[in-house]
Amino acid sequence: MNRVKTGVPGLDKLIEGGFPEASSILFVGPPGCGKSTLSQQFIAEGLKSDQPGLYITLDISPQEVLSTMGNFGWKTKTERLKFIDAYSWRVGKTTGENVLTNLGNINDLNIAITEAMKKLNSSKVKRNVFDSLSTLLLYADPSLVVKFIPVIIAKAKNEGFVQILILEEGVHDQKTVNTLNYVTDGVIEFKMEEDKRFLRVVRMKATKQKGEWTRFDITNKGIRM
Amino acid sequence: MNRVKTGVPGLDKLIEGGFPEASSILFVGPPGCGKSTLSQQFIAEGLKSDQPGLYITLDISPQEVLSTMGNFGWKTKTERLKFIDAYSWRVGKTTGENVLTNLGNINDLNIAITEAMKKLNSSKVKRNVFDSLSTLLLYADPSLVVKFIPVIIAKAKNEGFVQILILEEGVHDQKTVNTLNYVTDGVIEFKMEEDKRFLRVVRMKATKQKGEWTRFDITNKGIRM
Amino acid sequence: MNRVKTGVPGLDKLIEGGFPEASSILFVGPPGCGKSTLSQQFIAEGLKSDQPGLYITLDISPQEVLSTMGNFGWKTKTERLKFIDAYSWRVGKTTGENVLTNLGNINDLNIAITEAMKKLNSSKVKRNVFDSLSTLLLYADPSLVVKFIPVIIAKAKNEGFVQILILEEGVHDQKTVNTLNYVTDGVIEFKMEEDKRFLRVVRMKATKQKGEWTRFDITNKGIRM
Amino acid sequence: MNRVKTGVPGLDKLIEGGFPEASSILFVGPPGCGKSTLSQQFIAEGLKSDQPGLYITLDISPQEVLSTMGNFGWKTKTERLKFIDAYSWRVGKTTGENVLTNLGNINDLNIAITEAMKKLNSSKVKRNVFDSLSTLLLYADPSLVVKFIPVIIAKAKNEGFVQILILEEGVHDQKTVNTLNYVTDGVIEFKMEEDKRFLRVVRMKATKQKGEWTRFDITNKGIRM
Amino acid sequence: MNRVKTGVPGLDKLIEGGFPEASSILFVGPPGCGKSTLSQQFIAEGLKSDQPGLYITLDISPQEVLSTMGNFGWKTKTERLKFIDAYSWRVGKTTGENVLTNLGNINDLNIAITEAMKKLNSSKVKRNVFDSLSTLLLYADPSLVVKFIPVIIAKAKNEGFVQILILEEGVHDQKTVNTLNYVTDGVIEFKMEEDKRFLRVVRMKATKQKGEWTRFDITNKGIRM
Amino acid sequence: MNRVKTGVPGLDKLIEGGFPEASSILFVGPPGCGKSTLSQQFIAEGLKSDQPGLYITLDISPQEVLSTMGNFGWKTKTERLKFIDAYSWRVGKTTGENVLTNLGNINDLNIAITEAMKKLNSSKVKRNVFDSLSTLLLYADPSLVVKFIPVIIAKAKNEGFVQILILEEGVHDQKTVNTLNYVTDGVIEFKMEEDKRFLRVVRMKATKQKGEWTRFDITNKGIRM
Repeated sequence: MNRVKTGVPGLDKLIEGGFPEASSILFVGPPGCGKSTLSQQFIAEGLKSDQPGLYITLDISPQEVLSTMGNFGWKTKTERLKFIDAYSWRVGKTTGENVLTNLGNINDLNIAITEAMKKLNSSKVKRNVFDSLSTLLLYADPSLVVKFIPVIIAKAKNEGFVQILILEEGVHDQKTVNTLNYVTDGVIEFKMEEDKRFLRVVRMKATKQKGEWTRFDITNKGIRM
Repeated sequence: MNRVKTGVPGLDKLIEGGFPEASSILFVGPPGCGKSTLSQQFIAEGLKSDQPGLYITLDISPQEVLSTMGNFGWKTKTERLKFIDAYSWRVGKTTGENVLTNLGNINDLNIAITEAMKKLNSSKVKRNVFDSLSTLLLYADPSLVVKFIPVIIAKAKNEGFVQILILEEGVHDQKTVNTLNYVTDGVIEFKMEEDKRFLRVVRMKATKQKGEWTRFDITNKGIRM
Repeated sequence: MNRVKTGVPGLDKLIEGGFPEASSILFVGPPGCGKSTLSQQFIAEGLKSDQPGLYITLDISPQEVLSTMGNFGWKTKTERLKFIDAYSWRVGKTTGENVLTNLGNINDLNIAITEAMKKLNSSKVKRNVFDSLSTLLLYADPSLVVKFIPVIIAKAKNEGFVQILILEEGVHDQKTVNTLNYVTDGVIEFKMEEDKRFLRVVRMKATKQKGEWTRFDITNKGIRM
Repeated sequence: MNRVKTGVPGLDKLIEGGFPEASSILFVGPPGCGKSTLSQQFIAEGLKSDQPGLYITLDISPQEVLSTMGNFGWKTKTERLKFIDAYSWRVGKTTGENVLTNLGNINDLNIAITEAMKKLNSSKVKRNVFDSLSTLLLYADPSLVVKFIPVIIAKAKNEGFVQILILEEGVHDQKTVNTLNYVTDGVIEFKMEEDKRFLRVVRMKATKQKGEWTRFDITNKGIRM
Repeated sequence: MNRVKTGVPGLDKLIEGGFPEASSILFVGPPGCGKSTLSQQFIAEGLKSDQPGLYITLDISPQEVLSTMGNFGWKTKTERLKFIDAYSWRVGKTTGENVLTNLGNINDLNIAITEAMKKLNSSKVKRNVFDSLSTLLLYADPSLVVKFIPVIIAKAKNEGFVQILILEEGVHDQKTVNTLNYVTDGVIEFKMEEDKRFLRVVRMKATKQKGEWTRFDITNKGIRM
Repeated sequence: MNRVKTGVPGLDKLIEGGFPEASSILFVGPPGCGKSTLSQQFIAEGLKSDQPGLYITLDISPQEVLSTMGNFGWKTKTERLKFIDAYSWRVGKTTGENVLTNLGNINDLNIAITEAMKKLNSSKVKRNVFDSLSTLLLYADPSLVVKFIPVIIAKAKNEGFVQILILEEGVHDQKTVNTLNYVTDGVIEFKMEEDKRFLRVVRMKATKQKGEWTRFDITNKGIRM
């Protein structure tokens, strides 16, 4: 099975070279633990070799994502990087390409993702990030969201995307978490102890797991482990 | 009572030669533990001697099932193997023989299973797999699903099928699990410890149980224990 | 108070000669522990001396009940044994004497039981089995079932029936179990440890209880303890 | 405060001579522990000195209550003893003085109790038993029942009745039990250990409590402690 | 901050001289622990110096409150003491000054309290007791009651009343209790161990807390500690 | 990242100079622990250098806030300090600038906050306090409130406000608390042990955390630590 580099060589080593192709990986952890940073680094890694990237942002604006990525020194000025802006409606901005007017209607999001995936046509590996499922679960009916995610996963797989799905810890009921666990191809957990950050690969399709916590740092050039 | 070989000789030994005829067996375990692999091996075992097989797939496409089975070296090019495709609607495919248009309507699934079972007419033992109940419970009303499963079990028994029903662990409430336990003829639990896999026979109709965890491996020729 | 022999002399000894006349006894335990076998033996014991028996079957067909009883060597070819068939609707059979068309309507079941009890007119002790309440609780509204059971118990008492009600363990909420406990005249619990079977008399009207687990076996002639 | 003898001298000693006048006492315990027996003995004690008694029976017929009381040798043939029959509707009897047609309508029960209390006019202490609240909670909406009980308690106090209210243990949620606790004037708990019976006075208005379990026996002349 | 004497000098010492002016204090404890007695003593203390008192009674009649207070030797024959009678509707009395016709309509209660507070016009400190919130929570929708209490507290503060709110322990869910905790200015818990009574000041606005259990007794002249 | 002084130098030291600019910080703790005092000190700190302040008050009147701040010696007579009065409707005051007529309609609150933020136009840092979310969660639908808070946070960030959100402990379900945790930029917990007060920085955006409890005192000049 082909592997897709995560952008963090230390993590690639843990999982036999990278995420499995066409897989959807769940990131679970508390706020501020590095889930979004790793996701942005994963997108930046692809952009280096002209692999398209799609960032579905629900918690901060695309401008803030770009600014954060720029601060790490990652190239973001490229046609290959697209956003779905599911944040700016909060401050009243509801027009523009890929700007959602609200988060209550999963159908609009479905259409936006489907169309954006089609536009990012490429023979290369494609990458996308959903940041975060927790906010979607906050604004849309959770029983619909858990039915929607497997559909998005199937579409991503069908279109050749490797996908990261971000989930906050402690916010959702255990069944929702377990359901998202079994419908994805892999799960990475994050934790913090004081200022130290750790991740572990709980499960990864077609990959031997160790399940051990591994320390990583967020430097001014991104995550190092 | 006649026994139906599971395809794994080591497992047959544990349960007096195989699954009881016309029985429905529940497989319970976490994602990635080998439930689907054992189910596919069970279907392949039947195909060796021209026993019809019906694979009801909700989590991956029939093509992926066939590809996985082919990778293990199992013969799948036969009229004896039929699929009910309850997956492809996710990526927009909703036509074709035995392709369901969605999973919310249990009635459609009921009709598809009933008709497919009738078409697989044979004097031999017949086998079917439901992979997975968890996804049906995700998309359809669980209170209807627990009423539907005993009906499917009764039909399978009536038509001479030995049936495997797959259930993800930790996703459903305990009462649903216990109900599915008592309406089936047997329960096999799976677990993983690091990269090691184990199963145990919790209960099996007309069979002395040990209830001990037994290790097994997934080799490139399938499950060995 | 008159006692009605259970068919298992070892059990009769534990409870001062048998079940109290006109009593309703709850059997609680996991699947495969012998609840149905003891119930069928109880019916067979009555048939020996021409006591009428009514078997309300929801989990297997009357034919399977008869076949199982025949395998134990018990006489079943008699006008004295009647069935209410609340199983065969699952495989599409909904006509015939005492065949219910579904289980969602408690009223139909109520009428069928009331009429069957009247037809089994006799000056002798009468016996009936409800196998199982769990399946009724699965298909009908539990809040209606717990109101229905005391009515059936009152009718059985009024008509001179000794009645066994079978309940699966772990499937129902504790309040439902406790309610069925207090509305019956006695409770017998079953358990399995590996292949060994045990029962204990938790409570029995007008009977001194020990409450100790007693081992029993299922032989080819039925239960021995 | 005047005291009303319970009929069990050993219990009277524990509570400064008997129940406080115009009080409502809650009996809580498992099935078969002696709650009804003590209640009937309490009624019989009153009848000895021509104190009117009202027995509201929901779990067995008035005939069975009379028969049980007769077996203990207690006088029951008197105009002073009235029943409200909230049981016989189960076997289809719904006419007659003080026979309720069902238990779903609390209003009917309210009217029946109010009228029966008025008819039992007397300058003497009056006694009544409600056997059991649990069955009322089973058939009527519990949120209405907990509002109805304080009304019945107020009426009993107003009419000069000392009242026993019987509640099964483990059947109701803790808030219902705690609510019935605080709206009554006293609580007596019952328990069984093997064949031995115990009660303790948890709380009693205007009475010093010990709160210790005291053993009692049910002899052929009733309860002795 | 001015202090209002509680009527129990021992308690005043614990809380820097008495309850803070214009504060609302929550009393929490099991039935029979002395909550109402302390509340009545608090009202009686005010009446000694012609401070108006308002007793909102939901659990017993105003006559019983007066009788109990009289038994302790407290003066109650005064225009300064008013009742809102939210009890007598239970025995059918629904007319008269400040008699509520039921407890389901919080609006009626709101109006009655607002008007009674206005009538008790005085330049002195004013006192009122709400006995008990538990009964209001029983008859009215709890989600409305928790919204109503802060309104009553604001009105009492605005009108210069020091207010005691009584709550039974174990009857309400923890969130309701915690909500009533944070919307009041202080909380006193009560407990009983056998016949000994204890209270502790859990929290009191503008007051240093010790949080220790302090024993008190109910004598024939009221509470002493 | 620019820092905004909290008004408590000891706290500023813990968090690298103050709250991050344009951040929203959650204060969580029991009643009476100092959450409001710290919030008022934070507003007063800004007023010293003419930074606008917006105090959204739901639990006490603006007059009481001003009076409390005055008692600490803080300057409050300035056009720079605005209130949204979401308290006074309780005592019937529903007119005036920024006076809400009730708390059930989040839309009204949203408009009031949006307009007040616009009026406090300034090139300086702006500060606002929401005291308390708990009372909003009490009066408005919690599932709407958790969707509303991220919108208010986005608006505050967009308008350049540093915002404190106050939450009572133990009153809300854990998921609501966890959701408010992940949608804010930082969390400070408060606790009391007897009369000693402590706080700890659980999480703060762009700030190294220690997570240790630090003692503080409320003096007559405000909080000192």
